[in-house]
Amino acid sequence: MRSLVNEDCQLQLVRKNVLKEKTKIYFGSDIIGDKLCIIAGPCSVEDETTTLRIAEKLAKLGLRFFRAGAFKPRCSPYSFQGLCEKGLTILEKVKKETGLKIVTEVIDIGVIDIVAEVADILQVGAKNMGNTSLLKKLGCCNKPILLKRGMAAQLDELFLAAEYILLGGNSNVILCERGIRTFNNYTRFTLDIAAIPMIKDTSHLPIFVDPSHATGRRDLIIPMSKASVAAGADGLLIEVHDEPDKSLSDADQTIGIKAFVTLLRELDNPLG
Amino acid sequence: MRSLVNEDCQLQLVRKNVLKEKTKIYFGSDIIGDKLCIIAGPCSVEDETTTLRIAEKLAKLGLRFFRAGAFKPRCSPYSFQGLCEKGLTILEKVKKETGLKIVTEVIDIGVIDIVAEVADILQVGAKNMGNTSLLKKLGCCNKPILLKRGMAAQLDELFLAAEYILLGGNSNVILCERGIRTFNNYTRFTLDIAAIPMIKDTSHLPIFVDPSHATGRRDLIIPMSKASVAAGADGLLIEVHDEPDKSLSDADQTIGIKAFVTLLRELDNPLG
Amino acid sequence: MRSLVNEDCQLQLVRKNVLKEKTKIYFGSDIIGDKLCIIAGPCSVEDETTTLRIAEKLAKLGLRFFRAGAFKPRCSPYSFQGLCEKGLTILEKVKKETGLKIVTEVIDIGVIDIVAEVADILQVGAKNMGNTSLLKKLGCCNKPILLKRGMAAQLDELFLAAEYILLGGNSNVILCERGIRTFNNYTRFTLDIAAIPMIKDTSHLPIFVDPSHATGRRDLIIPMSKASVAAGADGLLIEVHDEPDKSLSDADQTIGIKAFVTLLRELDNPLG
Amino acid sequence: MRSLVNEDCQLQLVRKNVLKEKTKIYFGSDIIGDKLCIIAGPCSVEDETTTLRIAEKLAKLGLRFFRAGAFKPRCSPYSFQGLCEKGLTILEKVKKETGLKIVTEVIDIGVIDIVAEVADILQVGAKNMGNTSLLKKLGCCNKPILLKRGMAAQLDELFLAAEYILLGGNSNVILCERGIRTFNNYTRFTLDIAAIPMIKDTSHLPIFVDPSHATGRRDLIIPMSKASVAAGADGLLIEVHDEPDKSLSDADQTIGIKAFVTLLRELDNPLG
Repeated sequence: MRSLVNEDCQLQLVRKNVLKEKTKIYFGSDIIGDKLCIIAGPCSVEDETTTLRIAEKLAKLGLRFFRAGAFKPRCSPYSFQGLCEKGLTILEKVKKETGLKIVTEVIDIGVIDIVAEVADILQVGAKNMGNTSLLKKLGCCNKPILLKRGMAAQLDELFLAAEYILLGGNSNVILCERGIRTFNNYTRFTLDIAAIPMIKDTSHLPIFVDPSHATGRRDLIIPMSKASVAAGADGLLIEVHDEPDKSLSDADQTIGIKAFVTLLRELDNPLG
Repeated sequence: MRSLVNEDCQLQLVRKNVLKEKTKIYFGSDIIGDKLCIIAGPCSVEDETTTLRIAEKLAKLGLRFFRAGAFKPRCSPYSFQGLCEKGLTILEKVKKETGLKIVTEVIDIGVIDIVAEVADILQVGAKNMGNTSLLKKLGCCNKPILLKRGMAAQLDELFLAAEYILLGGNSNVILCERGIRTFNNYTRFTLDIAAIPMIKDTSHLPIFVDPSHATGRRDLIIPMSKASVAAGADGLLIEVHDEPDKSLSDADQTIGIKAFVTLLRELDNPLG
Repeated sequence: MRSLVNEDCQLQLVRKNVLKEKTKIYFGSDIIGDKLCIIAGPCSVEDETTTLRIAEKLAKLGLRFFRAGAFKPRCSPYSFQGLCEKGLTILEKVKKETGLKIVTEVIDIGVIDIVAEVADILQVGAKNMGNTSLLKKLGCCNKPILLKRGMAAQLDELFLAAEYILLGGNSNVILCERGIRTFNNYTRFTLDIAAIPMIKDTSHLPIFVDPSHATGRRDLIIPMSKASVAAGADGLLIEVHDEPDKSLSDADQTIGIKAFVTLLRELDNPLG
Repeated sequence: MRSLVNEDCQLQLVRKNVLKEKTKIYFGSDIIGDKLCIIAGPCSVEDETTTLRIAEKLAKLGLRFFRAGAFKPRCSPYSFQGLCEKGLTILEKVKKETGLKIVTEVIDIGVIDIVAEVADILQVGAKNMGNTSLLKKLGCCNKPILLKRGMAAQLDELFLAAEYILLGGNSNVILCERGIRTFNNYTRFTLDIAAIPMIKDTSHLPIFVDPSHATGRRDLIIPMSKASVAAGADGLLIEVHDEPDKSLSDADQTIGIKAFVTLLRELDNPLG
């Protein structure tokens, strides 16, 4: 059974032949879709001190894009749900004090405006890839969108989700492979690395990879990052914390600063 | 790798031991969670004439719950997106003229109020099971919620999604198995029938099955409905149209009135 | 991506249109492919006393087909590998003393002859569905074959495996759905009940279901058996032991005699 | 639900701590488990002229290990089943005339001896990973075994399959990741690249990758090969034909000589 794309319609705006060139997204001198780009930071925005401290350490390493969630769409209502508006205020401070560009998640149509005030890139999480109301509104947003593939989404479905945003007029979309759900029991998800060349071959949009969520294991972040880059990824999304065991969420998949430095070295210093 | 539930928290309100009895939801003399309940109707609300005609035909067969989507979260932005507010007006008319209870989808937090004005049961589609913002707001809604399992959701994750709604104070939640994504290529999804006894054993909430979306094939609706009922399902959600080939969406999985009558007979006339 | 069938060839001998009637397999007055048939017994042939005792208890309930493995293709070389030839001798004794028909697994081409001397039906396990050498030789065997679907086999691939046997001249093949590997974490496999009507619609061969291996859980055997029968299964393969907790293999999915009696009652006493 | 390993037994001989060093397999001056090793050749042994011609072209490029199947366990009995014994004779000639080491599949216990006379490495295909009779006999074989992961095998199950061979006394086992079956519809299987570092971290055995079978697409062979090497693969298994469109099997995933040369260049000339 092939995916819905072939039955209902054709991809249009996300296809390579629509634009002559690969999409590049400019943030002053920082460009996404050009050389390898690293987005890093803790899973959640935690208290101001911790968040600022991590951000400063990462900025010193040359990082340009900082990720941390203020709104967290957790599986369980009893898990930490994020600092919400307060988290956005902290991110604003991070931005001011470190100059880092902010990447943070927008979890529903009600918070797009306040997230867009602070964020340089609005992230749509895997759980919301099929939230077409959100996608439609982000089509009218003037900030770039990082759109994660749903955990059970066919590539065609990811493309169509992006098509919703492009069709609304927002052409700055970054796709992100973050692992698909399979029978594998040694990782949280299965990183579908073949999606990288396939996406690059089909679409002009940049493709990022999130090895942290894909594997759920610190010990696999470095090899999977290297594999992703070798397969042609335009960027990586890495969960980093200076005290990873104390992370308020996703501790198992969050690496420490030292491991992050090793990762950068193994990738030939993309921040350098 | 076990699901997140065991790591982060425990199920609480959805568990069987919290309430002494199985949840029953009363709509006058119609009860969900008691004897087998059938919810049927076209995939989408189409024009007023068509929708009313189908509703009347189904009401004559004894149907009490009518389903049809006014808001459609389609994979592609180029597919029919539903009649939206206009669709709700048509559903209101169906309700008035036929006495049928209305089951219709709520696709984002922005439309909860207007959907709740018309609907007797608000449906959360598979694509939105992980939309925690929507789940939280539905916890404050005074209408029953039919919550579909995400296409790649572990049962624990479905339970936790329900827990969001229950925790908000809305205890009238109906769970719905609608097929999971597997490698199978002869059906759209794989109906996970074992989920039915498992859910009944774990939770006090009623469990429905949607064989239409699960299989994507008309020829499998009757046997899968019978299997679901044999496994203990409290109800079925069936896509029916009086001219199924003309359905504006999901035509491949929509049965005609005649097949629906056969289904009812094979199920020992649950409407009777 | 569709399965290989469509690319390489067409199904021929397994298709419904080849024979005018549904395949029935006669064992004296016992017929497979007619009314519901139950095959039951312990996972493995254990010592003679235990095996005979279980067989006698089941025969008293009216059982006609007894299953137990003498050769066990276990995942681990450190697990019990079956009694092998000695197990066959025990099965021969069971046959003589109880009159039960014997269903037992043939795990390689080297043991076909000795298994066929004792067994009334030779079982090909899920792990061997793709063992084409075995399938070819079984095409020349004069005993019926119960062919289990591989845990990741498309239906087309199951049909083609059967085609190997039929093409060799052995037309007595019983197909068996035993669960497919999916992301589900509450069962060992996911029982694909839609395969039952699909197989019946495509092929003239009888279709059995093995809820024991499919679920790996005792508590799901009864509801899944009922669902399978409701969906049209021609027979069931059930792991039963009179002291299930002492089973040498698959204890978690083996039910006791009492539960088996309950199952029979819930199925309207198919043993008559 | 975790895999059987944890329930039944523990891995022993395949584990890293058993041997002090990583397993290396010596073929004169050619070593597997040391620097990157490439095994290449057509899917099947075709006629003598074609096979010799391809082998010579590959040998000229510096290839040391030639792969081609004489026995083919095809899904369909109507597909080309390989030249069998005649294919082995051709492989023997290839060996003599080109000096290439031969890697070819052994599909059942009946042909181990004749395959081992010609082959330098005996391949166990994905379909036979669970064929424990074959694994046991290969434990007594004095030739190295290349063991492919089953398409639905957990890593633990792959390790246990290798354990069968090691336990028999044959310590020269090469593991091979060749893609797992998932819902993905743009590739034949999903290459599970995280398996590479995971296997290296758990076991002392070399790990190869087969991007040809994993993806089923020529256009993905180069990026997936690069990704596999970046993730730490010890070797690659590549389907190459000098007229790929004329391949008797697997034409869609077979690359031509020119693409193979490009691959070698992109991998920094491992044939060196």
